[in-house]
Amino acid sequence: MPAAYPQLCDLAGEIALLDSTSATLGWDQETYMPPAALDYRAKQLGYLSGKAYSLFTSKKFRLLLDQAEGEDLSPVAQANVREWRRQLNRAIKLSRKLVEEFSEVTTHAKSAWADARKDSNFKAFAPHLDKLLKLTLKRAERWGYAGEAYDALLDEYEPAATAAEISTLFDTLRPQLSSLAKEAVARSAAIPADILAGDYPIEKQQQLNREIAESVGFNFEGGRIDTTAHPFCTRLGPRDQRLTTRYDEKDFTSSLFGVLHEAGHGMYEQGLPADDYGLPSGTAVSLGIHESQSRLWENHVGRSRAFWEKWLPRAKEIFPGLSLSIDEMVAAVNRAEFSFIRVEADEATYDLHIMLRFNMERRLLNRELKVKDVPAAWNEEFTALFGMTPPDAARGCLQDIHWSMGGMGYFPTYTLGNLNAAQLFRAARQSAAIAKDIDHADYASLLQWLRTHVHAHGSVLSPRELMKAATGEPTDARWHLEHLKARFLA
Amino acid sequence: MPAAYPQLCDLAGEIALLDSTSATLGWDQETYMPPAALDYRAKQLGYLSGKAYSLFTSKKFRLLLDQAEGEDLSPVAQANVREWRRQLNRAIKLSRKLVEEFSEVTTHAKSAWADARKDSNFKAFAPHLDKLLKLTLKRAERWGYAGEAYDALLDEYEPAATAAEISTLFDTLRPQLSSLAKEAVARSAAIPADILAGDYPIEKQQQLNREIAESVGFNFEGGRIDTTAHPFCTRLGPRDQRLTTRYDEKDFTSSLFGVLHEAGHGMYEQGLPADDYGLPSGTAVSLGIHESQSRLWENHVGRSRAFWEKWLPRAKEIFPGLSLSIDEMVAAVNRAEFSFIRVEADEATYDLHIMLRFNMERRLLNRELKVKDVPAAWNEEFTALFGMTPPDAARGCLQDIHWSMGGMGYFPTYTLGNLNAAQLFRAARQSAAIAKDIDHADYASLLQWLRTHVHAHGSVLSPRELMKAATGEPTDARWHLEHLKARFLA
Repeated sequence: MPAAYPQLCDLAGEIALLDSTSATLGWDQETYMPPAALDYRAKQLGYLSGKAYSLFTSKKFRLLLDQAEGEDLSPVAQANVREWRRQLNRAIKLSRKLVEEFSEVTTHAKSAWADARKDSNFKAFAPHLDKLLKLTLKRAERWGYAGEAYDALLDEYEPAATAAEISTLFDTLRPQLSSLAKEAVARSAAIPADILAGDYPIEKQQQLNREIAESVGFNFEGGRIDTTAHPFCTRLGPRDQRLTTRYDEKDFTSSLFGVLHEAGHGMYEQGLPADDYGLPSGTAVSLGIHESQSRLWENHVGRSRAFWEKWLPRAKEIFPGLSLSIDEMVAAVNRAEFSFIRVEADEATYDLHIMLRFNMERRLLNRELKVKDVPAAWNEEFTALFGMTPPDAARGCLQDIHWSMGGMGYFPTYTLGNLNAAQLFRAARQSAAIAKDIDHADYASLLQWLRTHVHAHGSVLSPRELMKAATGEPTDARWHLEHLKARFLA
Repeated sequence: MPAAYPQLCDLAGEIALLDSTSATLGWDQETYMPPAALDYRAKQLGYLSGKAYSLFTSKKFRLLLDQAEGEDLSPVAQANVREWRRQLNRAIKLSRKLVEEFSEVTTHAKSAWADARKDSNFKAFAPHLDKLLKLTLKRAERWGYAGEAYDALLDEYEPAATAAEISTLFDTLRPQLSSLAKEAVARSAAIPADILAGDYPIEKQQQLNREIAESVGFNFEGGRIDTTAHPFCTRLGPRDQRLTTRYDEKDFTSSLFGVLHEAGHGMYEQGLPADDYGLPSGTAVSLGIHESQSRLWENHVGRSRAFWEKWLPRAKEIFPGLSLSIDEMVAAVNRAEFSFIRVEADEATYDLHIMLRFNMERRLLNRELKVKDVPAAWNEEFTALFGMTPPDAARGCLQDIHWSMGGMGYFPTYTLGNLNAAQLFRAARQSAAIAKDIDHADYASLLQWLRTHVHAHGSVLSPRELMKAATGEPTDARWHLEHLKARFLA
C-alpha cells in the first residue's frame, strides 16, 4: 500500500489551489470589482468553497488520514496529520450545502455592509446580520461545544480558547485598563487633537508608506498595497501577499499605521515555509498569533521614539508642510483619547473596544440580544465604557467588516494579539544586540528573530506552545499592561 | 428519461464558473499581481483550465449532447447544441495534459514576453516562443486540417475561415491598400508629427476617457478601466467587463483610442444576453465580429469630425494647454504615416501590419521559418512593406502579446474586423435617423442598432449569417476600402 501522507499533501495542495483562487476573487471583490458583478462573484465563491469542502471531507481524504495516523512520520508530518484531524472533525460536522450557503450569504453581506456603513443605515444591514446570525448559530450547533455557542466559533480562530477564559481575562484587564485609559487620556489633553492636521496628498502618503514597509522588511516582489474601506491583508499564494489601507488626506499617519499593521500580518505570511504552502506547517497558527505580528510592527515599532527619529526627517522631505518636532511627533502618535472607531483607537483605549464587541456577540449568540436592538445596546455599552455616545451607526455598530464576513468570535483575538505582541517584543529585546538595533530603528534582527521564533513554525506548534517556546511562558497580560504604563504613564 | 438540454446548460454553467474564475486570475496577472506570484498563478490557471476541460469532455457531457441532438428544441437551444458539438469535436482531440501544459506555458510566456519587450531582448523570449510553437503545432495536428496547420488555428477564432481564403483576400487588398497608404501618408506630410504633443497628466486622461466611454454607452456599473502594457478587454462574469489601456503623457489620444477600442469590445459583451451567460447563445461569435465592434467605435466613431465637434471643447476644458482647431484635431487623429507599432498604426496602414504577421505565422507553422530567425525575417518583410526597418525588437517582432498567449492565427481577425466594421457602420447609417444622430455625435441609436443586429445574437448566427442578416451580404472588402478612400483621399 503506498504511503498515505504524500497523497494527503497532494490533496491539500489541490485544496490550496481552490482556496487561494477564492482568496484572489475575494481580494478583487474588495478592491476593484464593479458593483454589478456581485451576484455572479457570490456564485463563483460559493462554488469554489463547496469544491474545496468536498475534497477535504471526501472519503478519500478521510481514509488516507486514518491510514496516515498509523504511519511512521517526521515531527512536522505528525503535526500536519494532527491539524488535519482537528480541522476535519470540525468540517465534517458542516454540510457542503451549509458551506456554500455561508459563502454566498457573506459575499452579499459584505457588499451590503459597505453600502450600509456609507449611509450609516443599520436597517439596510440588519436582514443580512440576521441571516448571518442564524447561519452562525447553526454552525456552532453543528460543531458542538461544552460551554456556550461562542466557544465553537472562537475555536475556529484561536484553537482551544473558550469564551469563559476570555471573559475571565477581560474581567481582570478591564479595571486596570479603564483606569489606565482614563489617566492616559487626561495626560494627552495637552496634545492638540489636530496636531497632525495638514495637507497630505494620497500619492505622497503612498510613497512614504511603501518606503517604510519595504524598510521594515515587507517584500514587494511578492506583495502589494491597494486601497479599501477597511484595511486587510490576504494571502493569494505562497508568494503573493496583498495589503490594503485607507487614506485620510488630513492625517498621513492613518494610512501609515494601517500599512504597518497589515505589513506585520504580511511579513508573518511571507515568513511561513513557502514549500509547505497549503499544509498546516505552512499556515499561520491562530489569529491571536497573527495579530501579535501586526500589533508589534504597528505599535511597538511604529509608535516608538526610535522609529520616528529615523522616519520623521524623511516624512518632512515628502510632506514639506510637516513641521513637528520629534517630541511632538512621538506625542502625536501616542495621543490617547476616547473615540468611536476601533481601528483608529490608540493603544490605551483599544482593548475597551474589543470588550464591547465580545459582549455584543456573546449576547447575540446567547439570544439575549436581538439584531434589531444592536444599535441601542451598542450605544448603551459604549457610553458606559467611554463616557460618550456614537452619533450614528457608521461610528457605532456598523464600523467593522467582521460580522458581514461571518466572523463572529474573531474580535477577542485582537486583544490576545496585543498581549502576545508585548510579550514577544519584550522577549526579542532580551537579546542586547536586537535591543540595540531596535533603538537605532534597524529592524532586520528583530524580523529575523520573529522569523525563527514565530513565522517558521507555521501551525506545527500550538499558540500556547509557540508562546512558551518563544518567551518561556504562555500568554500573560502583564507585559502588555507594563508596556502601556511605560508608554502612557511614564 | 429527463431532458438532456437543461442538464447540458447546468454543466455549461459550471464550466463558465471555472472559466470566469480563470479570466479573473488572468486579469489580475496582467494588472496587479506581484512578480514573485507568477509560478503559483500558473499552477492555479493550469488547474482550473484542466478542470473545465475535463467537465466539457466528460462522458456525462458527451452522452447528454448525443441525447440532446435528438430532442425537440427551440432554435436558440438548437444553436447551442450545434456549437457545443463543434467545440467538443475540437476539444476531445486535445488531452487534459495538453490543455494544462498549454495554460502553464502561456502563463510563463506572457510574463517572459513582458520582460523581453521591456528590454527589447528577443533571445529572452525565443525559448518560450519555441515551446509555444511546438505546442501550437501539436494542437493543430490533433485538431486536423484539410489545407495547412494554420487553418486548424484560425478555426478557433473565426469558425470555418481558412488560411487560403485569408491569403486570397489579402492578395486582393494588398495592392489597393499599399497605394492608398502611400498616398495617404504623402497627404499627411503637411500635418506635423508632434501636432498633438503636450502635457497630459494621466489622471486627466482617465477623466476624459471615462466620460467618453460612459457617454458612448459603456456601463461602468458592470465594468472598469485599468492600466496594462498591452490594452485588452476581458469578461469576468455576465456583468463584469474589464478594459485596460496605457498612457502617453505627451499624447492623450493614445489612451483614449485604446479605451474606445476596448470599450467597443466591452459593449459587445455587455450586450450579450446575460441570462445566457456560459452558453453559446450568450457568447460572442468570433473575433472577426468582436473586432468589428472595437474598430467601429475606435475608428468610425472616434476619428470622425462629428465626434470631435462634441468632444474637443470638453478636452480643452480638461487640458487647458490643448489649443488645436477642429480641423487640426480631426487631421491629427487621422494622420497617416508608416510606423513600427501595430496598435498605434492609423487606419490607412494598419492592415499592412496584419499581412506581415499573417505571413510570419504561416511560415513558422509551415516550418519555413525558424524561431531564431524571426527578428531578421520580420525586419526584412517590414522593410519591404513600409520602406523602413524596426530599430529594435520591441518595435519589431516583440511588440504584440498574442504569441505569448498562444494566439497564433489570431491576427487576421483584426483585418476581418476592419472590413466588418465598415460594412456594419454603413448598414446602420442606412437608417436616416441613426445617420442624423451619428452626425450629431449622439450614439444611443447606433448602439441600439448594434445591440439588435449584432450583440443580441450571441453565437446563434454564424459570423457569415450575422453579417448577411445585418447588412444583406457576407463580409466584403469594398466598404472598408471605400471608407478609407473617403477618409484619406477625399
